[in-house]
Amino acid sequence: MRIGIIGTGVVGQTLGTKLVSLGHQVMLGSRTKDNEKGLAWTRQAGPGGSTGTFAEAAAFGEVVLNATGGTVSLEALRAAGAEHLAGKLLIDVSNPLVFGPDGGVTLAPVNTDSVGEQIQREFPEARVVKALNTLNCALMVEPGKLAGEHNLFIAGNDAGAKAETVALLGEFGWPAGWIVDLGDITGARATEMMMPFWLRMMGHFGNAEFNYSFKRPR
Amino acid sequence: MRIGIIGTGVVGQTLGTKLVSLGHQVMLGSRTKDNEKGLAWTRQAGPGGSTGTFAEAAAFGEVVLNATGGTVSLEALRAAGAEHLAGKLLIDVSNPLVFGPDGGVTLAPVNTDSVGEQIQREFPEARVVKALNTLNCALMVEPGKLAGEHNLFIAGNDAGAKAETVALLGEFGWPAGWIVDLGDITGARATEMMMPFWLRMMGHFGNAEFNYSFKRPR
Repeated sequence: MRIGIIGTGVVGQTLGTKLVSLGHQVMLGSRTKDNEKGLAWTRQAGPGGSTGTFAEAAAFGEVVLNATGGTVSLEALRAAGAEHLAGKLLIDVSNPLVFGPDGGVTLAPVNTDSVGEQIQREFPEARVVKALNTLNCALMVEPGKLAGEHNLFIAGNDAGAKAETVALLGEFGWPAGWIVDLGDITGARATEMMMPFWLRMMGHFGNAEFNYSFKRPR
Repeated sequence: MRIGIIGTGVVGQTLGTKLVSLGHQVMLGSRTKDNEKGLAWTRQAGPGGSTGTFAEAAAFGEVVLNATGGTVSLEALRAAGAEHLAGKLLIDVSNPLVFGPDGGVTLAPVNTDSVGEQIQREFPEARVVKALNTLNCALMVEPGKLAGEHNLFIAGNDAGAKAETVALLGEFGWPAGWIVDLGDITGARATEMMMPFWLRMMGHFGNAEFNYSFKRPR
């Protein structure tokens, strides 16, 4: 499958490398065509990987992943172009982290809105699914690193898009039964708002190698 | 120990009943002395349970639990009286849920503040610990209902107050190793902001009999 990834940061590169290893054609998109991180990734990604502008990556992909920071995602996707997103599954991996001068982290938007909702409103013809924004990217593409069942959460308005997302995550190694459907795209608020807790838990564990699971009655 | 509980709702009653069963003296506080829910609880709680005003319950307790809704907690604690909270461990169990006309739930405060922080600011002489606000009250007092290790989260500025909280939770059945210290009282933001996710998960499971746990590397 041809997959366009918006964003050349660690998350975009990690997802891109995994997708290439699975046999997909991947284009990483950045603001400028000669983005250093994108070019460096392309050199080591092998023949399945390439780099382009946001618009080129979005046009290239049959599926598009948003791996930009949540506070700049709308701007990046506008540059990608609504015409290159229309009708496509658009998996939004972002979190809208705002780093304060005191080292504190807040979210914008939050509570009454989310990046997932913003994107779906701005690009009504894209089929947006919020996913993967609740864990470290190394675990996104290798769930078997952790022992036992742990969970992912998806939210979106289009049932078909969510099924396609579950299938793609299955290629990463996620059993469908580990993926919880939180409902429509407003569910993105719920998972984005877990980020302050996730950051505290990272402080507790001393690293990002953990994920959520649930205990139920005996 | 004498324990004052601010709030006569299901959470306050459940905590009160458990504490009486453990041999503590418990006074449930409400706005008015003749609160129906408080009186009904007192009749079935046995000799260890009583009811009074917010101020009477706070004055009675060597430890005070805030079990009011988070959006009215400050008002209830003002009625309880700063002089009755000074120097005491004040465990804040609240979540600031705002129920919208469309059935949606948002939080106020959120993101840059929390009920836990509001209370600590308004009552600087109280030793506030945020705790227990991430799971259903039936599980708060009976963690063994769920199979295996699952977790609680505490936050507060006073290490001694957190140690006292862990000891009290130990009486409920929580091993100290299951309780994660998220740091100072700003950690209350993190746990309060999990509530939208918790509500979605309740929808997923169909009931409130679940709690968080974590998976780590093999």
